[in-house]
Amino acid sequence: MYQDVHVMMVIGFGFLMTFLKRHGFGSVGFNFLLTCFVIQWSILVNGWFGLIGTGAGRILIDIKSLLEADFAVATVLISFGAVLGVVSPVQLIMMATIEVVCYNISIYVGIVQFQATDIGGSMFIHAFGAYFGLAVARVLYKKSQTNSRKEGSEYHSDIFAMIGTLFLWLYWPSFNAAPGNGTERHRAVINTVLSLAACTVVTFALSAVTDKKNKLDMVHIQNATLAGGVAMGASADLLVQPFGALLIGSSAAVVSTLGFRYLQPLLQRTIKLHDTCGVHNLHGMPGVLGAVISAIIAAVANKAAYQDSYHELFKNTLRTPGQNGGFQIAALVVVLAIAISTGTITGLLLKLQVWDNLTAVELFEDEVFWECPQAESDDEDTNDEREVLAGKSTATASA
Amino acid sequence: MYQDVHVMMVIGFGFLMTFLKRHGFGSVGFNFLLTCFVIQWSILVNGWFGLIGTGAGRILIDIKSLLEADFAVATVLISFGAVLGVVSPVQLIMMATIEVVCYNISIYVGIVQFQATDIGGSMFIHAFGAYFGLAVARVLYKKSQTNSRKEGSEYHSDIFAMIGTLFLWLYWPSFNAAPGNGTERHRAVINTVLSLAACTVVTFALSAVTDKKNKLDMVHIQNATLAGGVAMGASADLLVQPFGALLIGSSAAVVSTLGFRYLQPLLQRTIKLHDTCGVHNLHGMPGVLGAVISAIIAAVANKAAYQDSYHELFKNTLRTPGQNGGFQIAALVVVLAIAISTGTITGLLLKLQVWDNLTAVELFEDEVFWECPQAESDDEDTNDEREVLAGKSTATASA
Amino acid sequence: MYQDVHVMMVIGFGFLMTFLKRHGFGSVGFNFLLTCFVIQWSILVNGWFGLIGTGAGRILIDIKSLLEADFAVATVLISFGAVLGVVSPVQLIMMATIEVVCYNISIYVGIVQFQATDIGGSMFIHAFGAYFGLAVARVLYKKSQTNSRKEGSEYHSDIFAMIGTLFLWLYWPSFNAAPGNGTERHRAVINTVLSLAACTVVTFALSAVTDKKNKLDMVHIQNATLAGGVAMGASADLLVQPFGALLIGSSAAVVSTLGFRYLQPLLQRTIKLHDTCGVHNLHGMPGVLGAVISAIIAAVANKAAYQDSYHELFKNTLRTPGQNGGFQIAALVVVLAIAISTGTITGLLLKLQVWDNLTAVELFEDEVFWECPQAESDDEDTNDEREVLAGKSTATASA
Repeated sequence: MYQDVHVMMVIGFGFLMTFLKRHGFGSVGFNFLLTCFVIQWSILVNGWFGLIGTGAGRILIDIKSLLEADFAVATVLISFGAVLGVVSPVQLIMMATIEVVCYNISIYVGIVQFQATDIGGSMFIHAFGAYFGLAVARVLYKKSQTNSRKEGSEYHSDIFAMIGTLFLWLYWPSFNAAPGNGTERHRAVINTVLSLAACTVVTFALSAVTDKKNKLDMVHIQNATLAGGVAMGASADLLVQPFGALLIGSSAAVVSTLGFRYLQPLLQRTIKLHDTCGVHNLHGMPGVLGAVISAIIAAVANKAAYQDSYHELFKNTLRTPGQNGGFQIAALVVVLAIAISTGTITGLLLKLQVWDNLTAVELFEDEVFWECPQAESDDEDTNDEREVLAGKSTATASA
Repeated sequence: MYQDVHVMMVIGFGFLMTFLKRHGFGSVGFNFLLTCFVIQWSILVNGWFGLIGTGAGRILIDIKSLLEADFAVATVLISFGAVLGVVSPVQLIMMATIEVVCYNISIYVGIVQFQATDIGGSMFIHAFGAYFGLAVARVLYKKSQTNSRKEGSEYHSDIFAMIGTLFLWLYWPSFNAAPGNGTERHRAVINTVLSLAACTVVTFALSAVTDKKNKLDMVHIQNATLAGGVAMGASADLLVQPFGALLIGSSAAVVSTLGFRYLQPLLQRTIKLHDTCGVHNLHGMPGVLGAVISAIIAAVANKAAYQDSYHELFKNTLRTPGQNGGFQIAALVVVLAIAISTGTITGLLLKLQVWDNLTAVELFEDEVFWECPQAESDDEDTNDEREVLAGKSTATASA
Repeated sequence: MYQDVHVMMVIGFGFLMTFLKRHGFGSVGFNFLLTCFVIQWSILVNGWFGLIGTGAGRILIDIKSLLEADFAVATVLISFGAVLGVVSPVQLIMMATIEVVCYNISIYVGIVQFQATDIGGSMFIHAFGAYFGLAVARVLYKKSQTNSRKEGSEYHSDIFAMIGTLFLWLYWPSFNAAPGNGTERHRAVINTVLSLAACTVVTFALSAVTDKKNKLDMVHIQNATLAGGVAMGASADLLVQPFGALLIGSSAAVVSTLGFRYLQPLLQRTIKLHDTCGVHNLHGMPGVLGAVISAIIAAVANKAAYQDSYHELFKNTLRTPGQNGGFQIAALVVVLAIAISTGTITGLLLKLQVWDNLTAVELFEDEVFWECPQAESDDEDTNDEREVLAGKSTATASA
């Protein structure tokens, strides 16, 4: 299952972001760089946090550490989605360095202190990553972002993006099940498969129904179909019944598709929040939804039904089910508070002119950081811009 | 292995169909939609059929149910290949709804009543899916289908299709082995790998030899290389010896490549059978071939050689090997009869004007159902058509 | 893990080579053909070599044979990379036939006689494949190779190549760990993940730093990021400590990136070595580096530290650690000697006019061996060439 999660990070997230017509190298490439950087950095940081209170002095590395490192990678890649195409690799490495620490703080409070349950990371990975990234994106917002001709897809870049979507969709059950064992893992796989299947069907239906000409929108198919995995995360190993899983997946599809269709343009107009990949719709809202659902299920959970393998929900015998539900909500609040506050601070830091900030013409454009072969679809406008880009000696360095 | 089969459905079949130059979104997208719809529908239908005679009142869902759901998905996706680009998503959903029930009937007769063996689904999945789809395609045939300029590939769409081919090729051993256990599973993996390897080499050779200029045809490489997996299906867990597996793979390559080269154009001219993906060559004939081979092997099988783990062939101790072979053929006949008759009825149903039927200009075209970004290779003809398409308010809704 | 290695061969190597703008079909297609041919041929040849001294008369086929066949495939595909686009499929099949035998001889001397350790094949797979292929490429060198306009990438072909890179990167830990068991396998996975992560970060940094405008070069990202897996190979199951793994990965990145940037053009100018995929930088030098590192580690290895599962290094109790190190170096020397000598002879054989040799205009061009759909980016030059190609009846046949 580690291998499956690994594929999600590098292929899934990497190709999901290639939908931009002139940012394919950057999407796949920086996603790859961030993954490798964060694997190493988060083994250290996760290790340090793991040592708290144990008295041990050395970090042990095993497959479990690598899996936990991949979860930190996922969080950073989600934030990357919010600022895709508007930051330089140096800024990305800075952001990742800070975010891994904040991510561990939110886990320490939520999991260690509050004993919240979140096997698939609806809160600690998806909601955290999304709101952290959105806070950064809000601070970095520049007017020139919103009218870029390059912030769009082309026919083949949308098909590349589907490679990402499908691998994420395929291995999401492993993502939600990997930290569990035995019965819980089995249950998490089945719940997530059902949730994703329902989510996809509802997304197709809603995407067509909400369009004036009843045409499907590729952005919804690429993204909202995955919201079922996000929302299922926090309760994947709980007894929700097949019916419950289908319902969770369908609700996630509704929230996510409507978010893409109506909320995202609204937020951009009103509060100047520019979200390149729509992580708010795919990870933010479905993550919050998942946390709320897990709180409700925890509050009504019946200990006897879990007799085959006691769920970790019941390890604290002093708590009533109602209190368990309360702590789930408390953990969500803490996650959001940490994500938004530290994300804002990180954004302010990245705005300093010491980094390699991008000008308007450099947004969503591979030419800035990559040696590009002559593109097939060169029109004159692009060439003009390219001269501008070529004349400017762009300094970039990574790690 | 469930995961491997899952990858085959979504990535394998999805990308295999992207070879059409203007139907990439539809190929990957509707493949994805059908998969998700059929997973849910077939869990129900498979479950109901499973309850027959047991007296139980509830359907149990475990990994095995999900695996069996994926086999139903494969059957539907094969039929989808025969009508790719000529039906609307509403028609597809209708077709899938009916097909899953018919598929279960054929399994009930063949496996439960006749006790036929078919671990990899040569008959029940490949032959059934192909002939059901072909029957639908024959009924829906319109003259305008055959001259469409859009029914062809372009350079990059062929490479996308190879992603599908290669993932199918890679995970086919898991597909043929998944329902088995222990020794039989091990044997099925090795037989299928050998069969596919031989099939691929023979396909390359034949594709070059049968061309006037000795050039290779991408359609053969994308499809006929997989016929070895189809034909191996019914006898993958039988003792066929490495030599037998290579022979089965090679015969499948011959049947499939010659089918693409000579039979398919002939059938289109004579009996007006238009088969977009050539499923007759990849699934139909190799599936029948596999069933016949399995009958021969069953008829000469030696009980003693299977001593390590008695094969299910011998679970009915009243039957002689010869009778086992006969029941294999009987099952094949039943499968073909059910597939062709129910497929024809389904086709007639889909022809009713209540569905969202396609006009000539809408065939093999993503514009009809998708919001498409400006394509790179726009020539004027395409734009003219696009205006026609845009002027028409195409009503589509899914699920 | 067999499945993972299988994916690396067909998807990984196949797509890695699709970076050439007019050779996508040939890269993926011939890679696929070679894989299937070599699986069958090497099961036989590996089997014959395995029978030496055993007195047995039959080759047993199990998953282990298939895995070993895949290692032979990897070796041949590496050599293919050195001559990509300049040889015909008939020449490739010839080359593969000879190479598998030579590969087995070098394993017989190195592993059976010298008892060298090389779990991930740094020497016997990577260095052997690279230097064999380079020797063939040197002999086949023609002046016309170096100025071909077609030996370059385009925007989308580079993204296709990234699919190959990422799948290789993802499954490399399985490649290095597959032959081991228990503790050693676990150790090999972790060491390889760390080595690859470090290698990738250093490659990004070096690629930017060594460029005049500090832009990243896609060729480095596609290739040098994998050098960490190659160099880790020979010592993946040894106790190198996380720190050691990171260091090995980083050194490999340095050697490989600088090789692509400076050494490859130099070799082409001076000794007329044309290396299409840069296998010298990705497999050759990092392979040698890995062998040298393994010699050093073997020479200082402490038997007591391996108490959990005695490493094969210690199975020959008559040898001191220093001698073990010496035999590692001896094995490397033998590998290089066999690879270069037999590669040269093979090259001379392939130069004979009886094969289907390519003329200047046919280099790096799919039109020669494939029925190609009209390409999107047709300019007039290409059409002129195409007429030339069409006029020539190119005879090709495979296997």
